[in-house]
Amino acid sequence: MTKEINFDVRSSRNLTMLVDFYELTMGNGYLRDGLKDKIAYFDMFFRRVPDGGGYCIMAGVEQLIEYLSNLKFTKEDIDYLRSKQIFAEEFLDYLENFEFCCDVWAVPEGNPVFPNEPLVTVRGPVIQAQFIETMILLTINHQTLIATKANRICRAAQGRTVMEFGSRRAQGYDGAIYGARAAVIGGCASTACTIAEEMFDIPASGTMAHSWVQLYPSEYEAFKAWAEVYPENCTFLVDTYNVLKSGIPNAIKVFDEVLKPKGLRPKGIRIDSGDITYLTKKCRKMLDNAGYSDCKIVISNSLDEHIINDVISQGAKVDSFGVGERLITAKSEPVFGGVYKLVAIEDDNEIIPKIKISENEEKITNPGFKKIYRIFDKDNDMAIADLIALNNEVINTDSSLEIFDPVYTWKRKKLTNFYVKDLMVQVFDKGKQVYESPSVLEIKDFASEETEKLWPEVLRFENPHTYYVDLSSNLWSLKQSLLHKYTDQYK
Amino acid sequence: MTKEINFDVRSSRNLTMLVDFYELTMGNGYLRDGLKDKIAYFDMFFRRVPDGGGYCIMAGVEQLIEYLSNLKFTKEDIDYLRSKQIFAEEFLDYLENFEFCCDVWAVPEGNPVFPNEPLVTVRGPVIQAQFIETMILLTINHQTLIATKANRICRAAQGRTVMEFGSRRAQGYDGAIYGARAAVIGGCASTACTIAEEMFDIPASGTMAHSWVQLYPSEYEAFKAWAEVYPENCTFLVDTYNVLKSGIPNAIKVFDEVLKPKGLRPKGIRIDSGDITYLTKKCRKMLDNAGYSDCKIVISNSLDEHIINDVISQGAKVDSFGVGERLITAKSEPVFGGVYKLVAIEDDNEIIPKIKISENEEKITNPGFKKIYRIFDKDNDMAIADLIALNNEVINTDSSLEIFDPVYTWKRKKLTNFYVKDLMVQVFDKGKQVYESPSVLEIKDFASEETEKLWPEVLRFENPHTYYVDLSSNLWSLKQSLLHKYTDQYK
Repeated sequence: MTKEINFDVRSSRNLTMLVDFYELTMGNGYLRDGLKDKIAYFDMFFRRVPDGGGYCIMAGVEQLIEYLSNLKFTKEDIDYLRSKQIFAEEFLDYLENFEFCCDVWAVPEGNPVFPNEPLVTVRGPVIQAQFIETMILLTINHQTLIATKANRICRAAQGRTVMEFGSRRAQGYDGAIYGARAAVIGGCASTACTIAEEMFDIPASGTMAHSWVQLYPSEYEAFKAWAEVYPENCTFLVDTYNVLKSGIPNAIKVFDEVLKPKGLRPKGIRIDSGDITYLTKKCRKMLDNAGYSDCKIVISNSLDEHIINDVISQGAKVDSFGVGERLITAKSEPVFGGVYKLVAIEDDNEIIPKIKISENEEKITNPGFKKIYRIFDKDNDMAIADLIALNNEVINTDSSLEIFDPVYTWKRKKLTNFYVKDLMVQVFDKGKQVYESPSVLEIKDFASEETEKLWPEVLRFENPHTYYVDLSSNLWSLKQSLLHKYTDQYK
Repeated sequence: MTKEINFDVRSSRNLTMLVDFYELTMGNGYLRDGLKDKIAYFDMFFRRVPDGGGYCIMAGVEQLIEYLSNLKFTKEDIDYLRSKQIFAEEFLDYLENFEFCCDVWAVPEGNPVFPNEPLVTVRGPVIQAQFIETMILLTINHQTLIATKANRICRAAQGRTVMEFGSRRAQGYDGAIYGARAAVIGGCASTACTIAEEMFDIPASGTMAHSWVQLYPSEYEAFKAWAEVYPENCTFLVDTYNVLKSGIPNAIKVFDEVLKPKGLRPKGIRIDSGDITYLTKKCRKMLDNAGYSDCKIVISNSLDEHIINDVISQGAKVDSFGVGERLITAKSEPVFGGVYKLVAIEDDNEIIPKIKISENEEKITNPGFKKIYRIFDKDNDMAIADLIALNNEVINTDSSLEIFDPVYTWKRKKLTNFYVKDLMVQVFDKGKQVYESPSVLEIKDFASEETEKLWPEVLRFENPHTYYVDLSSNLWSLKQSLLHKYTDQYK
């Protein structure tokens, strides 16, 4: 419906300078040090699924592509940087004539993803590959966080509709806009954020606020006025004064007086406060008794996956949930800790793997230029494991494959009847965009299909089974040898 | 330095359509119902200080003004809305010819603010006053949240420098950009977010990433290369391999070899992992023994006010803190729960106060068109209390003033030697902007000055004294009468 409309708030904005200042000082340093053409490889990955979940939903690739396609330093940017008096003119020239020429691979949006696997890999001149760190992290961290949270909330709703309602409590305008996008990828049916429909062709919806009810002399008059303007779209907010003594009786009265004579049915009633389980049960009975058993009950009020779980298990009569602040900010865990680490450089066209050591084992990186194979069971298409391999490794699916835990290496599994999928796709080839993003609703469907390929034990809400993310033998051996090399130095 | 540069990523963006969809359906409804010129009053306020703190720091007014100054529906917006097939042509005409004509009052940025007092008050035609709800809340909620969190973190640092480092973990691009702005208002000395310096003339700073160190064959060579490019700006990240066995010895070696011959001093060393208290004490000794007692120690690594408090109390030797994800997302409490409520309408030029009832006492609103008086002690300029009064009330500072707790009304206090300040300023007069925002650094200084006028008991980190926010006798009586009127109906 809105596909033809060529409106895009994003394209009018140049975010090139949204960069941590040290990317610029390092870039200037590399240039001064003769490393302008030094090829480096960086991986973006995360270490832990938020909220103790079993997987995340990848999101943000479309916006990352837009950013990388539009990298451009304006005259004002260059003047501003010059005024800092620490950058060489040669570096400012480089920026003024900046031409993005990196290769970029990414896991397409909507895929379930797991800790320690590269979500984005960049290969290119170190100045460029380093420069884009901030925006890669910012873009993928934010949208993956919200898509993952939305997915949890939608699973808790067990098939009931979840609407994203959080704009007013988002962390900034983009928090609302791209948060709505990610929420739909994660499973929400709609958003209250109008601009998000215009930009992404995802359904915007909404009903009325308390102020509508308050503005009229009485609740009855407020409902009646609404029903006369929107007879086919009557969802009344019934908790402005008193849900059971005023809201529902007035709603039923207006349904009877305004809708019935026109042969129309009500859409729903919404409750935004009070004891949800108790009120929805009572409301359901009152509506049913009045002949409105098709009138949906919508609830909203600081909901999250736990409250939704709880009210459903208590038998609340709810058809759909409006979820606001706890979704749009991922309140229970509002940080997605993706990192961007150097994993290799090139010397005379040879790839030299690099590792980042840490006393915290979790923080040790997987070295080298890599890819991810997702391994599926041929019989039922269920995902068995992910295997991180070196980029030049090919998996022979005709013979058996032994995978093993990278820490407890005696935990081994022999796979026979399987097929694999190369999870990352190339999105830039020497700076040229070579991938087109699907629409948001296509991504939403894809996320739903791919999530269904995970075993229920991985999908589990609390204490999920840890999905296998193993290293190929070659990668494991490479990592061990680099680890020993470095740690031998600091015994 | 960058003041002359006329760069503004914001002005190129039209956020008019960043609105909850129900503002539009309600607007259409009001118009259809003949309420186009109905005058309404709305208050934006919050109910609770995040993190159990004693006050918040107001922020976001400049961006709110920009939004209100630039309200404009494009042809594409109108086409998109028409395609929804629920809006009357008359309403679409109204939007196409939209001219903002509301009066708006706001508490200027940097002021300490407290629960239940209006931070923004809007008076105007209900369609317009309702329409701007989402952006008022989004703008003020986000920046006040981050300014308040930054203020907590900076207080914990007890005078040490705090740098904002969080862009990569922010919730969207604006989360990074306006988050950096709010962080500086709250007290941060600088930000890593380059575009924020360009936009707001707040200092951007940064040093090096682990990747710089990894890219070179050895840490020593990496430090040396840096020192040769930036001899006057040497802050080395010393934890890539091993802080005490490698990082600090290499730093000292490079200070000796590269800086000393030039007669230059190092700026600092940064530690981003490990046991901060232990490491900083050891590093301090090693640096002091090598003759670099002026070399600052910077730490970063998932810091917040509690960790900063803790490491300082344990005697860690830290000169400055780089604070990332826990500041830029206000991780411990990432939602600022500001609301926007109808408080009055006009009938024949008479103001009719409105109240929102709730079974939850905290959610009952203060009715009417109001202002806030901050009451100061004449002797020492310390803030004694805030008094919310009806807009036409004037406080006579020549006679004594009795204030009382609005719930425990027997708690009374008689003030004599005082003066008052009218806290809100008018920012729009019938749609015309009548207020110019100060610069961000001016707001930062103002915030610091005004915060110092709060008693230490209110500033206290844990379990602060509740600052008095009282209602004038007239307002209190009005509220009681409306409460009784409504509750009598639903006994």
